[in-house]
Amino acid sequence: MDISSLLGISLPLVQAPMAGVQGSALAIAVSGAGGLGSLPCAMLTAEAIRAEVEAIRAASARPFNLNFFCHRPAPPDAQREQAWRLLLARYYEELGIDPAAIASAPVRAPFSPALAALVEELRPPVVSFHFGLPAPELMARVKRSGAKVLSSATTVEEALYLQAGGVDAVIAQGLEAGGHRGMFLGEDMSTQLGTFALLRRVVAAVDVPVIAAGGIADAQGVAAALALGAAGVQVGSTYLLCPEAGTSTVHRAWLKSPAAGHTAVTNLFSGRPARAIVNRLVAELGPINAAVPPFPHAGAALAPLRAAAEAHGAGDFSPLWCGQNPLGCRELPAATLTRALFEAGA
Amino acid sequence: MDISSLLGISLPLVQAPMAGVQGSALAIAVSGAGGLGSLPCAMLTAEAIRAEVEAIRAASARPFNLNFFCHRPAPPDAQREQAWRLLLARYYEELGIDPAAIASAPVRAPFSPALAALVEELRPPVVSFHFGLPAPELMARVKRSGAKVLSSATTVEEALYLQAGGVDAVIAQGLEAGGHRGMFLGEDMSTQLGTFALLRRVVAAVDVPVIAAGGIADAQGVAAALALGAAGVQVGSTYLLCPEAGTSTVHRAWLKSPAAGHTAVTNLFSGRPARAIVNRLVAELGPINAAVPPFPHAGAALAPLRAAAEAHGAGDFSPLWCGQNPLGCRELPAATLTRALFEAGA
Repeated sequence: MDISSLLGISLPLVQAPMAGVQGSALAIAVSGAGGLGSLPCAMLTAEAIRAEVEAIRAASARPFNLNFFCHRPAPPDAQREQAWRLLLARYYEELGIDPAAIASAPVRAPFSPALAALVEELRPPVVSFHFGLPAPELMARVKRSGAKVLSSATTVEEALYLQAGGVDAVIAQGLEAGGHRGMFLGEDMSTQLGTFALLRRVVAAVDVPVIAAGGIADAQGVAAALALGAAGVQVGSTYLLCPEAGTSTVHRAWLKSPAAGHTAVTNLFSGRPARAIVNRLVAELGPINAAVPPFPHAGAALAPLRAAAEAHGAGDFSPLWCGQNPLGCRELPAATLTRALFEAGA
Repeated sequence: MDISSLLGISLPLVQAPMAGVQGSALAIAVSGAGGLGSLPCAMLTAEAIRAEVEAIRAASARPFNLNFFCHRPAPPDAQREQAWRLLLARYYEELGIDPAAIASAPVRAPFSPALAALVEELRPPVVSFHFGLPAPELMARVKRSGAKVLSSATTVEEALYLQAGGVDAVIAQGLEAGGHRGMFLGEDMSTQLGTFALLRRVVAAVDVPVIAAGGIADAQGVAAALALGAAGVQVGSTYLLCPEAGTSTVHRAWLKSPAAGHTAVTNLFSGRPARAIVNRLVAELGPINAAVPPFPHAGAALAPLRAAAEAHGAGDFSPLWCGQNPLGCRELPAATLTRALFEAGA
C-alpha cells in the first residue's frame, strides 16, 4: 500500500514539519511538486496558523499537513531552572548577559480543545502529531473533521499504540532523524532503533501503512525505504538549505560545513532528546545533561546566549537541527529536491 | 560493483564472524550455500585455528574468511579492576562466589607477527579485521599471502582510514549491528551512525566496494542495502539460532523471547561498546559504566557470575549479543537462511 492514494498526493513523500525553521513557503513548494507539504504549528498562535493556512490554500488546492505536538507539559521547576542557569553561568558571563533579566520565552504548546476547534474550522486534509496522540476526545474531533491522521513511532510498542489510537499511517522515525525524537512511551534512549531495524519491525507489527523517516536524503534512500516495506517516506533535513525554508544564516552555514557530519541526540535545547549538530554547547555540557529543565522549559535560559552568539555569526548555543545524513542538503528549490527524490539515477 | 567476483562467491553475503558463538560449522554451511563463511579467530589458539581451517577445507574448496581483532590491548589496571569487582560485589554475594578465587580469564588477543605467520601458512582466501587494521608491515604480509582484506568502519573517517590502509572492501557497520562496535578512531558514541545514513555516506566517500552491516535480516533488507549502494551485505544475528551456530542454550532462549527486541550498546561485558540484549546486569549497572576495566579485561570478573547463573538457566550476566533486528533469527539450517536472504518475496 502506498500513501499517495491515502493522502491524495502524487509522490509518496511527506515533508517533515520542522518547527522554527519553516512555514508555509516550504509546504507550498513541496505540495506543488506532488508531495505532502507540512506546516509545523507547535510554535504558532491560532492567528498565525490561520494566516499560514490561508497562504497555502491561496497557492493551490493540493493536500497539506498541519503538525501539532501532544506532549504533557511539565510544570516549571524552579530548582532545576536554577541548576540549569548555574550550568550556563560561565556563558552568561562570557557574553555579558544578565541572567536576572532573562524573560520567560514562549513555549511549545500541546494540542488542546482550542486547537481541535481550529482544526474543525480550517479542515486541513492531513494532521500529524509528534509525541504521541492527543486525548481520545480530541483525536475523535480531528478524525471527524475529515483529516487523515499521522503520528511518529520510535519503537514497535509506540507503533502499536498509535495504531490502536486510530492513526491512518504510522511514521517510523529511525534514530538517524534530525530534530525531536517522537518517543512518548518512555525515556530510555536504548529503546531507539536505527531506520533499517525500526522499519522492518514496525512493518511486521502493524496493519496501517508505515512512512519511513530518518537518514533518507536521496532517490536511493527512497528506493531502499520502499524495499524495506515503507508505504512512503518523510524527509526533513534535506530541505533545510532550500530558499523556501526559514533556516537561519548561522544554521545554513553549519549545514554546509563538515561539522554537519557529526550530530548527537541532545536534551540541551528543549529538555527533550532531539538530534542536532554538535556545537560548543553540546560538546561542553555533553549531549544529555540531567540538569536541563523538562520540556519545553529548557529553551528560555538559552535564548539570550543564542541571540548574542548569532549576532556575531556563531552557532555555539543554537539548536542546529540535522539528521545523520546531511548529504542531501542542497541550495535548490524544494520542488527540484522533491522530484529528485523519485528520479532513478538522481 | 559486487563483492561476489571480488571474493569468489556466488551470493554477495559475508557471514559476520561472531567470536564465542560459532566456529567452522557455521562458516562451512554459509560458504556451502554460496556466501562467505567466516571463522572468528580472536579467542582461538593457533592450534585451534589450524584445526578449524582444516575442517573448513575438508568440507569444500569454497572461499572462507578468517577474522582477527586488531585492538591495542590496554595493560591491566589494578585500580579499575578493584572498582569493577566492588560494583559486582553484591552479585558475588548473592551467588555465593568468592571473588578472591577468580582466575584470570583467557583474553582476546590482537593480530600479531605470529598470527601473520599463521595466515602465510594457511593462506585463507579472505581475512577480515575488527577494530581497525594491524601495523602496516603485518597488513602487507597478509596482503602478500594473497588474501583479500576487509575491515569494519563505523564512521566516514574510519572508512577513509581503511581505504588508505589498503583494504579490498569496507564493511560499513551501522549502529543496529549486534556484537562489538568496530570503532577504532575514537570512543565518542555520538559519532556512530545508523545503517541508512552510514551506508550512503561511506559509499559517497570511498572508491572501494562497501559491505552493509547492521539490521539486515531478510531479503527486503538485502535489497534495501543494495539500493543504498552496497556491494554486498554482512549478516550476523540472523544466524544465531541455526543448528550450526554454537550459541548457548541460555542465549538461544533469550533470542527467542520478546526480550530480544530490546538491546543496548554496552561496555560491561568486555570493556568495549558492543550491542547485546538488555539483561539484568545491563539494566542494573547501566549499559555504559565508567568503572568497567578497559578491553579486553572486563570479562574475567564476570565469568564466574555468568557460569553460576547459566547453570540455573539464567542469562543475567551473559553477553547476549544481538542486533536491533532479531526478526530474522530462526531455527533453520544456515544454508536455508542464506538462500532466503536472496529470494524475492521470502
